[in-house]
Amino acid sequence: MMSSAENTPTARTPDASVDLARAARCGFPEVVFGEGKTAEQIRDVFTAQRGAGQRGLATRVSDEARGLLAGQMPDAVVNDLARTVRFGEAKREIGFVPVLTAGTTDRPVAEEALETLRWMGVRTALIADVGVAGPHRLPERLPEVEGADAAVVVAGMEGALPSVVGGHLSCPVIAVPTSVGYGANFGGLAALLGMLNSCAANVVVVNIDGGFKGGYVAGLIATGANDRELDR
Amino acid sequence: MMSSAENTPTARTPDASVDLARAARCGFPEVVFGEGKTAEQIRDVFTAQRGAGQRGLATRVSDEARGLLAGQMPDAVVNDLARTVRFGEAKREIGFVPVLTAGTTDRPVAEEALETLRWMGVRTALIADVGVAGPHRLPERLPEVEGADAAVVVAGMEGALPSVVGGHLSCPVIAVPTSVGYGANFGGLAALLGMLNSCAANVVVVNIDGGFKGGYVAGLIATGANDRELDR
Amino acid sequence: MMSSAENTPTARTPDASVDLARAARCGFPEVVFGEGKTAEQIRDVFTAQRGAGQRGLATRVSDEARGLLAGQMPDAVVNDLARTVRFGEAKREIGFVPVLTAGTTDRPVAEEALETLRWMGVRTALIADVGVAGPHRLPERLPEVEGADAAVVVAGMEGALPSVVGGHLSCPVIAVPTSVGYGANFGGLAALLGMLNSCAANVVVVNIDGGFKGGYVAGLIATGANDRELDR
Amino acid sequence: MMSSAENTPTARTPDASVDLARAARCGFPEVVFGEGKTAEQIRDVFTAQRGAGQRGLATRVSDEARGLLAGQMPDAVVNDLARTVRFGEAKREIGFVPVLTAGTTDRPVAEEALETLRWMGVRTALIADVGVAGPHRLPERLPEVEGADAAVVVAGMEGALPSVVGGHLSCPVIAVPTSVGYGANFGGLAALLGMLNSCAANVVVVNIDGGFKGGYVAGLIATGANDRELDR
Amino acid sequence: MMSSAENTPTARTPDASVDLARAARCGFPEVVFGEGKTAEQIRDVFTAQRGAGQRGLATRVSDEARGLLAGQMPDAVVNDLARTVRFGEAKREIGFVPVLTAGTTDRPVAEEALETLRWMGVRTALIADVGVAGPHRLPERLPEVEGADAAVVVAGMEGALPSVVGGHLSCPVIAVPTSVGYGANFGGLAALLGMLNSCAANVVVVNIDGGFKGGYVAGLIATGANDRELDR
Amino acid sequence: MMSSAENTPTARTPDASVDLARAARCGFPEVVFGEGKTAEQIRDVFTAQRGAGQRGLATRVSDEARGLLAGQMPDAVVNDLARTVRFGEAKREIGFVPVLTAGTTDRPVAEEALETLRWMGVRTALIADVGVAGPHRLPERLPEVEGADAAVVVAGMEGALPSVVGGHLSCPVIAVPTSVGYGANFGGLAALLGMLNSCAANVVVVNIDGGFKGGYVAGLIATGANDRELDR
Amino acid sequence: MMSSAENTPTARTPDASVDLARAARCGFPEVVFGEGKTAEQIRDVFTAQRGAGQRGLATRVSDEARGLLAGQMPDAVVNDLARTVRFGEAKREIGFVPVLTAGTTDRPVAEEALETLRWMGVRTALIADVGVAGPHRLPERLPEVEGADAAVVVAGMEGALPSVVGGHLSCPVIAVPTSVGYGANFGGLAALLGMLNSCAANVVVVNIDGGFKGGYVAGLIATGANDRELDR
Amino acid sequence: MMSSAENTPTARTPDASVDLARAARCGFPEVVFGEGKTAEQIRDVFTAQRGAGQRGLATRVSDEARGLLAGQMPDAVVNDLARTVRFGEAKREIGFVPVLTAGTTDRPVAEEALETLRWMGVRTALIADVGVAGPHRLPERLPEVEGADAAVVVAGMEGALPSVVGGHLSCPVIAVPTSVGYGANFGGLAALLGMLNSCAANVVVVNIDGGFKGGYVAGLIATGANDRELDR
Repeated sequence: MMSSAENTPTARTPDASVDLARAARCGFPEVVFGEGKTAEQIRDVFTAQRGAGQRGLATRVSDEARGLLAGQMPDAVVNDLARTVRFGEAKREIGFVPVLTAGTTDRPVAEEALETLRWMGVRTALIADVGVAGPHRLPERLPEVEGADAAVVVAGMEGALPSVVGGHLSCPVIAVPTSVGYGANFGGLAALLGMLNSCAANVVVVNIDGGFKGGYVAGLIATGANDRELDR
Repeated sequence: MMSSAENTPTARTPDASVDLARAARCGFPEVVFGEGKTAEQIRDVFTAQRGAGQRGLATRVSDEARGLLAGQMPDAVVNDLARTVRFGEAKREIGFVPVLTAGTTDRPVAEEALETLRWMGVRTALIADVGVAGPHRLPERLPEVEGADAAVVVAGMEGALPSVVGGHLSCPVIAVPTSVGYGANFGGLAALLGMLNSCAANVVVVNIDGGFKGGYVAGLIATGANDRELDR
Repeated sequence: MMSSAENTPTARTPDASVDLARAARCGFPEVVFGEGKTAEQIRDVFTAQRGAGQRGLATRVSDEARGLLAGQMPDAVVNDLARTVRFGEAKREIGFVPVLTAGTTDRPVAEEALETLRWMGVRTALIADVGVAGPHRLPERLPEVEGADAAVVVAGMEGALPSVVGGHLSCPVIAVPTSVGYGANFGGLAALLGMLNSCAANVVVVNIDGGFKGGYVAGLIATGANDRELDR
Repeated sequence: MMSSAENTPTARTPDASVDLARAARCGFPEVVFGEGKTAEQIRDVFTAQRGAGQRGLATRVSDEARGLLAGQMPDAVVNDLARTVRFGEAKREIGFVPVLTAGTTDRPVAEEALETLRWMGVRTALIADVGVAGPHRLPERLPEVEGADAAVVVAGMEGALPSVVGGHLSCPVIAVPTSVGYGANFGGLAALLGMLNSCAANVVVVNIDGGFKGGYVAGLIATGANDRELDR
Repeated sequence: MMSSAENTPTARTPDASVDLARAARCGFPEVVFGEGKTAEQIRDVFTAQRGAGQRGLATRVSDEARGLLAGQMPDAVVNDLARTVRFGEAKREIGFVPVLTAGTTDRPVAEEALETLRWMGVRTALIADVGVAGPHRLPERLPEVEGADAAVVVAGMEGALPSVVGGHLSCPVIAVPTSVGYGANFGGLAALLGMLNSCAANVVVVNIDGGFKGGYVAGLIATGANDRELDR
Repeated sequence: MMSSAENTPTARTPDASVDLARAARCGFPEVVFGEGKTAEQIRDVFTAQRGAGQRGLATRVSDEARGLLAGQMPDAVVNDLARTVRFGEAKREIGFVPVLTAGTTDRPVAEEALETLRWMGVRTALIADVGVAGPHRLPERLPEVEGADAAVVVAGMEGALPSVVGGHLSCPVIAVPTSVGYGANFGGLAALLGMLNSCAANVVVVNIDGGFKGGYVAGLIATGANDRELDR
Repeated sequence: MMSSAENTPTARTPDASVDLARAARCGFPEVVFGEGKTAEQIRDVFTAQRGAGQRGLATRVSDEARGLLAGQMPDAVVNDLARTVRFGEAKREIGFVPVLTAGTTDRPVAEEALETLRWMGVRTALIADVGVAGPHRLPERLPEVEGADAAVVVAGMEGALPSVVGGHLSCPVIAVPTSVGYGANFGGLAALLGMLNSCAANVVVVNIDGGFKGGYVAGLIATGANDRELDR
Repeated sequence: MMSSAENTPTARTPDASVDLARAARCGFPEVVFGEGKTAEQIRDVFTAQRGAGQRGLATRVSDEARGLLAGQMPDAVVNDLARTVRFGEAKREIGFVPVLTAGTTDRPVAEEALETLRWMGVRTALIADVGVAGPHRLPERLPEVEGADAAVVVAGMEGALPSVVGGHLSCPVIAVPTSVGYGANFGGLAALLGMLNSCAANVVVVNIDGGFKGGYVAGLIATGANDRELDR
């Protein structure tokens, strides 16, 4: 029920201001950045959102907080690789966004993107470990990304995969650099710079290890700007 | 006529390999990165594209090359602020992407985005000089961005405008940092980092002064992944 | 009693030279930078200051040292979030400095600023969690900052909040970047650069996580250059 | 006459949105960032401000534009070292802000600060070339800064002067790093980092070569938050 | 005739010490780094080398110096794109090193590598403009690199091409980052970091725009460590 | 037996795609990057490789995983300094690649290079602790590197050793910067930049702490491009 | 007795090459960089040096190794703050080098410099906690540095103290930046850059936290280049 | 005549404060940093110094100012490579400081050091072009540096030469990084970091291209702390 949210667009929990108007304004409710937050602080936001008839998603939730929330919320979907907690179902599945990774160590960031897309109600698929050093791996899997509205490409090290994927696909590619690597990787800087300088025209970039934002923007594209308010 | 393009997907000019298959593969023809290229080199690519029934766009074209191309190509649309040259008309206008700037000095980068969108056949609008230091300016202009499929936000200095725009809109926001500013701006790095760290969930980023890519990806979103091949 | 301080402007503790003349010279006594200092080292400085009739403040005090000092000094005001210890009351409250934060994780730095202002005898208020991604939150709270002599704005990530606050207020804004964030935040560098490049003319900046200095300079402005020596 | 400004808070020139409400909201009118602007663009803003009964200041004005404006505006005060143009007199002089420089090459940035303070109606003084390598020079000049409400300290190279000045004065010190120096100065970065890490508690920092902002914030402090609207 | 070189391993020209022993010690004579050198300074070195029966190569030679040297040395091979001058023929052609580029603007750096390889007597081939954004271009050209002893891959922007080439070839790949690009390319840093972090095991890296060194090391590999001294 | 590998070039383990075709395509099988991988994940890849008649090597294997693998695989060669695990013998020894280190703390990175070379079947030798501060140490050991096909030089701090070695040898020198050092070493950046800027023409560089890649490329050079497929 | 050292200039311990010729060549024996070394490895070097009639010094020795060495070597001088171990007495005291610090947290680095100077036989003095924020502290202590041959100045944060000391003294000043500070200090980078850009002509710089080298070079200056070999 | 200088330790020229007391306090008069200064400004300082019986030196003097000063001052010693102007003779020559360079392009910075040493009255010698890539060059020239009190080593690119020189000499080595090089040299940063991380214990560093300071500190060491005031 949206009406109460419209009347009280900001709910104050003991530690935060919850922007309940965002679901109406932005198409999806506010997402909790869980870094440094206790289970209690996250649950307070979830309770306010549930009261406003909204779904909830928290990212970067600590191991301890995930454990506590799993115990307290029977309908919580907890993903330990992604470090996410979410609740509430999308009414129907809409659009298609594959998530590709360069290596197995990019998996946790990819999982954060996948969880975000599932929470948004977008159909998704994981195409893992198709980095450019094995040039036969990506072409073999291209049929699986057919019909994508957008693609999320997660890569560390030199971050070359989004450029190659961008050369094959016609849809927007959201590149997510990861901090995977060592030495002159400088915590993901190498992959980030590589992606920003991509020669492929359809590649845009989010922050290092930004699986949530990568998934979220791809999800926005897939659900379509015009249809968003109507069908959730 | 597409058939010849399909048969010879790569046209060799004296200095370049023109990817004529890209229009079919990616929805839009290859765009010429004009930096360091002569008028002759650019015209050779345009000629190959025209021969394949495609439209053409060149960015970062030098003053001299723009002058020569304007003289040689009667249907060329030359934009001196944007430093672009293009030819060929889209069949019909589709979608809507406004371009916003923080200050007047961000204008050339915004123009590059606008020219790219026009070449793609996307309706657009320029909302200039609405940076955050004048907090009343953006809200006054918000009605003009109503119904946007995506927004391009161009800003230098601290690069705060995309975050604020992202808070107001539900569609994806493509943030384009510019090298406008001085001192600790470090050639656009400050704006770039600010945008990558945006707390707004719908903001993605392209390279510094990347007006073309900002416009291109916004245009891809607006024209819609599924409808692209059909109607151009 | 100031006389002894004037005679011996520098007190030597076993490990430090305490600048007792600073209260007369600078309006407020020296503040202890507690990083890496033991409870004993801090208490020695406090004892010298108390002997000279001065108030005391220590910042970045370790958990262990805070516990010990709390046990030893009955009038100590210990703030665990801020990691500060202080003693001594200002004679009267003067001026007004609100402290604003972008997100809940910026709180500890804001608390350090608040403790500093309280120690200086300045009236203060905390306006928490009003970052730019929720554009309705700040305008709702603006009445609470009415009449400010200066404002302290604490923000991590892209550090956009000081620019927006600076656009609304006529007083100086002391921007405090925090190391909150991840990836291309680079330990607060993104927020720092954003604030240094702020397009708002009334924004100045202190070091990353510099809650103390942010509060101190705002307090200096609020107590007024001319009235300072007289009433403490 | 303020009334027209209140009715039309934003004046549109061909290339800019002039925030005419800023004088009422922020105490002083909008200042023109002249970088990359023509004499015509600057004059259009000045004309709008003059029409609203406001004073005007433009910084970083090109040599050519300064020459043209000097010819067109009989009451323009042009400062070639500072690269500024201004018009309109403050009603009366208020407060005192000295500007100190470390070396003679810091002079242009200091002049920008001085022009800004004069435009604001603040009494000022230039204490030039008192850098720390000549340790006798600053103490000799300290009597001249007596009674300062705030001080602007301009320094390049290692940027040590603000820390030393901050140790002597009780008022806020606005440190302005300059790009003066060579080698590992990295365009002012060394001075900037030095000032941000100043051990003096009363030192805040603005952008590299940010003479305008340094002067402006010092002027805000000097004119006093409460008296600002009344007497201009 | 080597004997004189052996007796006087270092020849002193007015401005340099020419290491004439290097041909015996390292397989190839010393190469002149022409940056900032006059035609006269370069010719002095060439004369000493010619006197010792050695071939000569100078890189990064200014336009003016190239013109003068072309006039003075009838057997000089001048390459204006590469900015090189060389003289002396290898006895026979040995090995094969193709040079690949990502885009047409990488050409000058590739030419420097090609000239170096020709001077060393290595067979070479230029495979230009096969960057990853056009994914069909490289596979089409792979037959031309068949049998390579090493490959030089020149790329700017994100520098992804060496990783992809490295995935296809079994020989060592010498990656040469170029300063081609703009914005967050930071003068070739993005390409450099990308190449250093390449996930392909056979990719090593040289300095930005280091066409000479890229060609030289590839040439060393091709001519073979053991056969080097014998046949030149 | 190669035939099965040719039929199924990619083996899917639960967490990875194993590129079994690489041995045929690149001369040596895929190497496992063990960072963040469990013993189980590594053993799955090894099993697939053993099934295809290939040898195996894993680098950056955790202490725990090395212990487990040592217990499970009787023929595993575990090197605790290098943090590697490998199995399978080369048919015969070919070529010669010495590994030199500047100081004793560079040893673990050198060991990774040595293990890689042994796995490739290349004869090797360790010349340890011959950094430039003791200028007599390297010349004493030069006879031991006689006949090298390539040399791997491992150094931290200022990274000067590869330049000096490069001046003495005629073969390619693969420089491996290490993160050994402190302060302005910045995690190996100083050594990396030093090596990239080496004035010795035969020095190429790999990533910081990249012992594997340094050894691998040197091994490729030593085994010779043409003989590679035949004799393993 | 030097004769044996001359015969065997390099002693090989199991893990290191000890440069025993350095005492004759450089005036002082080799110093052990203890980072990552076991007590056993350090003791092996010490034993070789003792056998050659030389004194020994090890820096950056771990807590565990210091404890073991203290137990094994009755004449070891262990300094826990400095993390050093040394043995052997200089024949007589020569020269004078004071060590100054900006704050109490710079003490460990200063102690490393002091221990080095004592090991070299140079008279020294510690002038602690005289940073520039308390401008009266340094002038009070200047009489204690009278007659210095060189001064070591240790400072973190903005690193301004060496410039000020350099302005007062005529002898060389060795500036040692420390990693003390937070935020934009970036692990000592701010202090390092400040010191490199010092406007005082007599200031040279060593690596961050480089107490040993600061003390060593100051000691070389104090003992005098010509007298060195003679009197130890 | 020193008496007037003692009475008026600071002379004010129209644009500068000349620290005339420095000759007495620091052993040598103030040196003019000529960057951005006119011939007139430099001559004013020289006139004040000549009036106080002092010698004068200006560095980084523009071509135009050098020409004018040469015309106006008959006893001026102008060095166009070094970009210096000086006047006044030292009473007698004292000490010995050789200046070594890695390559011919390091020459201008070396000349600045040489001019400074000559102005101080120190005997000097230039050992040019002995970089590490030609390992035989330095040992050949070592006899020429015999008896040095200190050495100045000027090098760009990887900056390895000071470490090697430091290993051969017992005196302090002042390393001067130059901005010579390209690509990942980053304007001298690579050489600077290399020198700061030098494993040779007797190497200290000055700013990039800091020929003056390198020469000045070496000169201070050579003239000896105690003898300085007496004999000039």
